[in-house]
Amino acid sequence: MSAAPDKACAAAQEAAPRIDLARLLARIEALAQVGAIEGGGVCRLALSDEDRAGRDLVAGWMRELGLDVTIDAIGNVVGVRAGREALAPVMTGSHIDTVRTGGRYDGNLGVLAGLEVIAALNDAGIVTRRPVAMAFFTNEEGARFAPDMMGSLVCQGGLPLDEALRTKGIDGTTVGENLARIGYAGDAPVGAREVHAFVELHVEQGPLLEHEGVTIGAVTGVQGIHWTEFVVEGTSNHAGTTPMALRHDAGIVAMQIACHAREVARELSGGQLATVGHMKLTPDLVNVIPNRAEFTLDLRNTDAGVLAEAVQRVFAFAQAAAQAEGVRITHRSLADFAPVAFDERIVSRVEAIARQRGHSVRRMPSGAGHDAQMLARMCPAGMIFVPSVAGLSHNVAEYTHGHDIEAGAGVLLDLLMELAG
Amino acid sequence: MSAAPDKACAAAQEAAPRIDLARLLARIEALAQVGAIEGGGVCRLALSDEDRAGRDLVAGWMRELGLDVTIDAIGNVVGVRAGREALAPVMTGSHIDTVRTGGRYDGNLGVLAGLEVIAALNDAGIVTRRPVAMAFFTNEEGARFAPDMMGSLVCQGGLPLDEALRTKGIDGTTVGENLARIGYAGDAPVGAREVHAFVELHVEQGPLLEHEGVTIGAVTGVQGIHWTEFVVEGTSNHAGTTPMALRHDAGIVAMQIACHAREVARELSGGQLATVGHMKLTPDLVNVIPNRAEFTLDLRNTDAGVLAEAVQRVFAFAQAAAQAEGVRITHRSLADFAPVAFDERIVSRVEAIARQRGHSVRRMPSGAGHDAQMLARMCPAGMIFVPSVAGLSHNVAEYTHGHDIEAGAGVLLDLLMELAG
Repeated sequence: MSAAPDKACAAAQEAAPRIDLARLLARIEALAQVGAIEGGGVCRLALSDEDRAGRDLVAGWMRELGLDVTIDAIGNVVGVRAGREALAPVMTGSHIDTVRTGGRYDGNLGVLAGLEVIAALNDAGIVTRRPVAMAFFTNEEGARFAPDMMGSLVCQGGLPLDEALRTKGIDGTTVGENLARIGYAGDAPVGAREVHAFVELHVEQGPLLEHEGVTIGAVTGVQGIHWTEFVVEGTSNHAGTTPMALRHDAGIVAMQIACHAREVARELSGGQLATVGHMKLTPDLVNVIPNRAEFTLDLRNTDAGVLAEAVQRVFAFAQAAAQAEGVRITHRSLADFAPVAFDERIVSRVEAIARQRGHSVRRMPSGAGHDAQMLARMCPAGMIFVPSVAGLSHNVAEYTHGHDIEAGAGVLLDLLMELAG
Repeated sequence: MSAAPDKACAAAQEAAPRIDLARLLARIEALAQVGAIEGGGVCRLALSDEDRAGRDLVAGWMRELGLDVTIDAIGNVVGVRAGREALAPVMTGSHIDTVRTGGRYDGNLGVLAGLEVIAALNDAGIVTRRPVAMAFFTNEEGARFAPDMMGSLVCQGGLPLDEALRTKGIDGTTVGENLARIGYAGDAPVGAREVHAFVELHVEQGPLLEHEGVTIGAVTGVQGIHWTEFVVEGTSNHAGTTPMALRHDAGIVAMQIACHAREVARELSGGQLATVGHMKLTPDLVNVIPNRAEFTLDLRNTDAGVLAEAVQRVFAFAQAAAQAEGVRITHRSLADFAPVAFDERIVSRVEAIARQRGHSVRRMPSGAGHDAQMLARMCPAGMIFVPSVAGLSHNVAEYTHGHDIEAGAGVLLDLLMELAG
């Protein structure tokens, strides 16, 4: 490109960039076809064949838009659009892996809106001062490999690369072997890139914005997340001949702990959340007392103190329940992330830009974990939320209206341009 | 055989029959190798390839001993040793299918002890007045197809044959297709045979005999069994963004019902038992609120009234818990057997013969369901229990001492000879 285009030419090339909603929705639709499942949802578990196909599709689009695409050793894919100066880039992005019964917006919207911002800048012929980068991070969901947000966590140094690569998933295979298998064990060093600022657009995944009729959420931070896998080991025996008093039933102890966690969440103030999403009994037969129960507990709170109290109360109950039944209980941490506060300047700019564009906006914390909370340890970071219909997420019926997607992508565009200069 | 042997010859042939413990243990060992699993246990789910191999082995032994072997349309295998008169036979038997983590004695002991009684009669050259029959019945455990005790249930008319054949198992295939697949869809009519009396030898599967130092249990009856499969349907959603008050969590409702059933069992008098052995959450992921939970409830009691109360209380709670959470709950009966009382004459004879042989004996109910309770609807029936070490059953570590096996088989031998005349 000429370094000094004449004014007329510059005016023609530098039209005000704008989000092309139809193009963005078409990309969301195309990506949703990869790993599509009944009901309009998507199953692209991290590093599966479906994830590979999704990655190939998005990375192809990134290259088509002229980005310089690199893949790092944990499989994070970053595309950079050069700026006028060789400065640290302004970055956006999210993830494209999904849970087993995922929707088509979670993660994907942030990645494809980033792509749309790049396309809009290209269309308008705008060259920003700083480079603009867009990324998708490996295994944000944690549905196959724990912890979640793995790619961005490794990127910011919170988990050693070799430990991440050795992580075994629900099928017994490792992150490292699956990265190699699908061809995304890249050669770029992890986390070496300096980032000037990071902004992620995401669906709310909760009911608040829709409930209040607000279009844009200026996300103030992310609640703390505490994931534990418990294993209870008792004695398998005949369901018809073993008196209740003589049982060592691993299953009932697991279920008592799950019920207690629900009670603790109810009793604690501050929006404490508790979920038992996974439960596996062994031998899992109608007339055999389980000798083993494996289950997960997901505890979350925006308040680190209350979260710690919830953890303490559930763990104390777990020990007592195991002792009362005469079973052994062990646990391991799958994820433990303290609450994160986003950069106040970015939160304020999300609010201001949303208002400038005529959208209603409110500050709110994020209930879910997001890659942006990992980037927040490296650079000023923030997030933009758009409404989820009926608050549904991790559900094939997840949906966000086109006008809300357009609003969110517009705020992202303006904010990235502002940050990139 | 000559109809009128001379006296010397008759004396030589008719030595007092005796149990050959080594031979019986060798057959138990050989059968335990079919479908052997780690820890010394056995996995021969009904109508599996392993079950076929076990059936082939035992049916082969039956033919070697000269029995007239027939297979009926539900796969029950009966071998008859002719008597002096063409009367209804005295029958013994049990089952050779196991749960997934089964032991080597449950069912197998009763079948192989019956075989040993036949062998002992053969060795001693004894011809009884009535024929002596031994049988193994299809799918006693119910671990693959519900209800349990299916073969003997169909045999006595409690379940229509065509309904049994259409029953789908945990893998979605039917009883009928599996019977055909393994070659045990026989041509003998089901239940056509008149039986004079039925006696089953079985391991106690509970701790009582060992705990009291008693060798023989004279089983007075079998407690009532009520099996239900519940399906809870809620809404899958994100574990981090859905407030507790807005959840429709199928999993927690299932677990609350399980915990409540345990409470009901504790509160009711009369040895009420409650077991949740199977639980399956969907999508079964750490950070997704389950939209579906499937679980089984096994309730048992020797008192039909108390059992009915337990059922009523758990079902009422299930409805209330589902309503409170805003989820849908449905259930279907997998088995519903009223308590059974065995024939008093047979119970008394078990006691008397045990004492004659110098064994300690006590009357007791059976906690588990047994084929004998189905035969009890057709003819005088009873059971002989021998101790289970540590009360373990449906467990690979299930064990019964050789001297107790010898004692039980001896009582069975004497009782069958007495009944056969």
